[in-house]
Amino acid sequence: MPEKVLIIGAVALGPKVACRLRRINPEIDITVIDRDSLISYGGCGIPYYVGGDVAEIEGLYSTIAHAKRDVEFFRKVKGFNVLTRVEAIAIRRADKKVVVRRLDDDTEDEISYDKLVLATGATPMRPPFPGADLPQVHVVSNLHHASAVKSAISRGEVENAVVIGAGAIGIEMAEALTDLWGINTTIVEMADQVLPQALSRDMARIVEKKLVDSGVNLLLSERVMAINGDKENGVESVETANTKLPCDMVILAAGVRPNSELALEAGLATGRNRGILVNKRMQTTDPDIYAGGDCAEFTNLVNGQDCVMPLGSLANRQGRIIATNINGGNEQFPGSVGSFCIKVFDMGVAKAGLTVAQAEAAGFDPVCATVAQSDRAHFFPDADFMFMKLIADRKTRKILGVEAAGPQGDAVKSRVDAVAPLLQFGVDVSFICNLEVSYSPPYASAMDVVNNAGNALDNTLDNSLKSADTFDFVEKMKQGIVTVLDVRSSIQAEPFVEKFKDKWINIPQDELRNRYEELNGKISASEPLYIICGTGPRSYESQVFLASKGIKNTLNVSGGYGMVLAIHDALT
Amino acid sequence: MPEKVLIIGAVALGPKVACRLRRINPEIDITVIDRDSLISYGGCGIPYYVGGDVAEIEGLYSTIAHAKRDVEFFRKVKGFNVLTRVEAIAIRRADKKVVVRRLDDDTEDEISYDKLVLATGATPMRPPFPGADLPQVHVVSNLHHASAVKSAISRGEVENAVVIGAGAIGIEMAEALTDLWGINTTIVEMADQVLPQALSRDMARIVEKKLVDSGVNLLLSERVMAINGDKENGVESVETANTKLPCDMVILAAGVRPNSELALEAGLATGRNRGILVNKRMQTTDPDIYAGGDCAEFTNLVNGQDCVMPLGSLANRQGRIIATNINGGNEQFPGSVGSFCIKVFDMGVAKAGLTVAQAEAAGFDPVCATVAQSDRAHFFPDADFMFMKLIADRKTRKILGVEAAGPQGDAVKSRVDAVAPLLQFGVDVSFICNLEVSYSPPYASAMDVVNNAGNALDNTLDNSLKSADTFDFVEKMKQGIVTVLDVRSSIQAEPFVEKFKDKWINIPQDELRNRYEELNGKISASEPLYIICGTGPRSYESQVFLASKGIKNTLNVSGGYGMVLAIHDALT
Repeated sequence: MPEKVLIIGAVALGPKVACRLRRINPEIDITVIDRDSLISYGGCGIPYYVGGDVAEIEGLYSTIAHAKRDVEFFRKVKGFNVLTRVEAIAIRRADKKVVVRRLDDDTEDEISYDKLVLATGATPMRPPFPGADLPQVHVVSNLHHASAVKSAISRGEVENAVVIGAGAIGIEMAEALTDLWGINTTIVEMADQVLPQALSRDMARIVEKKLVDSGVNLLLSERVMAINGDKENGVESVETANTKLPCDMVILAAGVRPNSELALEAGLATGRNRGILVNKRMQTTDPDIYAGGDCAEFTNLVNGQDCVMPLGSLANRQGRIIATNINGGNEQFPGSVGSFCIKVFDMGVAKAGLTVAQAEAAGFDPVCATVAQSDRAHFFPDADFMFMKLIADRKTRKILGVEAAGPQGDAVKSRVDAVAPLLQFGVDVSFICNLEVSYSPPYASAMDVVNNAGNALDNTLDNSLKSADTFDFVEKMKQGIVTVLDVRSSIQAEPFVEKFKDKWINIPQDELRNRYEELNGKISASEPLYIICGTGPRSYESQVFLASKGIKNTLNVSGGYGMVLAIHDALT
Repeated sequence: MPEKVLIIGAVALGPKVACRLRRINPEIDITVIDRDSLISYGGCGIPYYVGGDVAEIEGLYSTIAHAKRDVEFFRKVKGFNVLTRVEAIAIRRADKKVVVRRLDDDTEDEISYDKLVLATGATPMRPPFPGADLPQVHVVSNLHHASAVKSAISRGEVENAVVIGAGAIGIEMAEALTDLWGINTTIVEMADQVLPQALSRDMARIVEKKLVDSGVNLLLSERVMAINGDKENGVESVETANTKLPCDMVILAAGVRPNSELALEAGLATGRNRGILVNKRMQTTDPDIYAGGDCAEFTNLVNGQDCVMPLGSLANRQGRIIATNINGGNEQFPGSVGSFCIKVFDMGVAKAGLTVAQAEAAGFDPVCATVAQSDRAHFFPDADFMFMKLIADRKTRKILGVEAAGPQGDAVKSRVDAVAPLLQFGVDVSFICNLEVSYSPPYASAMDVVNNAGNALDNTLDNSLKSADTFDFVEKMKQGIVTVLDVRSSIQAEPFVEKFKDKWINIPQDELRNRYEELNGKISASEPLYIICGTGPRSYESQVFLASKGIKNTLNVSGGYGMVLAIHDALT
């Protein structure tokens, strides 16, 4: 049994390891060091502190019983020592010592260990364009940053802000700046969609529309060239390839990179994402050194590749495993399926597994279905639309990914979390068709949206459902190059028929069996007929019926007009 | 390929089979018969119609696009025939015919089939006490019942109501009567808890307190002897073994039994619950006859026993499978893990798998942990407590069941649905410790309640956490036979110390390392010391610490004082 455990890093994983280890081993010597003075905070809560949901910054480092998680707390309550403002500068593996520097007096020392834990976290990337180091250019990864951002805002110094990067932190910060503070905020993103790591294109469009409708300016496919300003007056503008955005504050949210230098210099292996490689016991290539949290690299259980995943939830779960293993146990962290969720104004978004693009990149042949459906029994008063996308591999029918969005965030998360743990078992699409989510009208439909996403995907794999990407459909509508069959009621279809004339044919579904022959001569030989209804089921049923009558070149608009409105303004 | 398909029953499974079958086979001859005139309704929505959440009864049999699902709808839109007021009276398997009676003119006929589907549903039980057939004694299983109940209520005829049975329908009806209509409502239940099929005892106590706090009278362990009244004036009172409850209406919600007589008379096998036995393809013992929904009996995937499960969700999923298989496919319904959820006033409750009692009955040695935790980051403004119970088998560590309750129903369902599909894989407790539910402060804690339920159960299996059932603790407190160590702050503990004197010792957790010796002499040698905090983690940590100092006869109050308040009035 080890006698001395040293933990480098006291934010999420570090304290978790120490607390658990103390509980299961009252005798072991535990020391945690951190170069910062503020420790053990919920970094993912920073946007909510900036945006006002969390009133005091102490809220981010207090327990539910309102105790501040500081050095004193860990000593008295948890029974171990934390040394703050102490930076690890080298690991001497040969004699099991870590060289540290006390930042307050700049003196050096050595701390010996039997087992070492690297909980060094990650650092926000500062892209290499000029001006990234100007005053009022902020990253948001610790409480000092959080405090600086909120101070400047509450002093009324910020009228216009630019957020660089449309990942989770960028979006959360944009919401914080816009929603409470009314700051005119622009997100600039290099990729052609928001959340490129998390969402497939059509689902990302839903988030984009929500951002824009909530007052955020969004520039996609746009590269930042420079941040203009000077040391004295701070930032003046952000210059992109195509425009210049005047601003008083810039938030850099261009991703993070694992803090693996210390490990690398000590000869430990790092992976393709620069994270510290660990085995399932969370040991690095030196079995006496463990690593976890944002600095570690582990297996993505869906594509089998190494990944990094800077999430407080993973850090906490891994921390428990590391503590158990240091104490002689044998707990395993098999890897991650990439579960993720985010609140975007009044919408919840969640995903697990691979996006369509990630699935392609991993060598799968992804087939997907996107559905729109009520998140509870449609007759229940507070039912809302939920959009859900399910992705499988064509050949094996294995589920590769799931994405969802809708106004009731808990309900969205519910569907994705039910699928997520199954991804590692390689379940067939049929498993999702029959997924036994609990049912009661206030919380679900009898055939729930997650089951119907499975059904739609099953129908797609069977070739009975042929879908159009709704985003593509909208683009083609705008170009006037498609013909639409609208199977909704005449009252609903009328404004569309009026606007699009003979390009928008209305035959209500209950008349289609008698009137389908009217379509003869109206359908282009080269272009498919796009069939649309409110959310997708009636157009699918119509597609199947028309196919039985020989009209086979049709595409179902996924998620129907409900999906159109979620990604685009009204077509009328 | 079959040419003629006959389906008996047009509520949930029947129409689902027919709709799907028509979509995948445009040619096949499909007939659905039902003895009722009102068909294809959401029976589980009836309490919400009675309670006013659903304004019009048509809401329960309309599509999301407001089309009424009647004979005309199925003919014109779905493309098959439904014959209503036609009752199946015999299956002549030898010549593949069903003898039917037209209820309107009392004539008989025969309908031939190549494949037959039994979707005959279930019938509410009418217990054998006198008076169960009096006017204003209602079951609630179809729209006629729903209408009769709501009419009587809205005419102002009901001041006092008795609901017999505290299962899902009984509770939902009690809420409907109390919440909108202000009817003085009493639930009488034979078992010593509500929802005996769904919840373990401590979780049921949470529901019981919610019912009582919401104005429902609750009589548990009480047997109904008779319903008094006469044919002319209707019911006057419900007589139980110990009391007499005056009332103007009685709701019989004592469970349902599968309608399997037709199948039984035709020589098909039925199971221990009187349901029609089906294989994984949903075929009865006659391969040309399928059955599903409330009348069918299939495997419970956790205990391996045959079960019935009257839920619209299962009926819909099974219906799709039957349609696929009739059309030559090979879809399988492996069975059910017993997922269930219910809204009880402003609280959501969900469960999957076995309760403690069911696990014992099935021969397992159940070990459980009950935790109380915030349902989102505790610093997030609208965070609420969630209570969660996780049950595993001691020897194999396999998860057997999960139960949860809390004010945010979608969040409750979310945690249970994430665990439910895993029950059939026989996952180890560790799997739940690491369950990769998605994380963001607005929707979850970094160490989410479901992970912590796993951790608590893991700690219990490791013998580091020794828990008291909170209900037992409260009972013993009332008898004054236990000593409590309260590790909350002095301010919180003060009223308890004042009331319980030397039976309630307060040492705040941050002082315990220095003051634990004060406990010497204060602890009973025979009775364990009960340790309590707000929700459980501090008392657990204190328990572990005291054990390291030799004080080992302690019990942690599961879920802390938060759980006490969820099942009982304040102790002070």
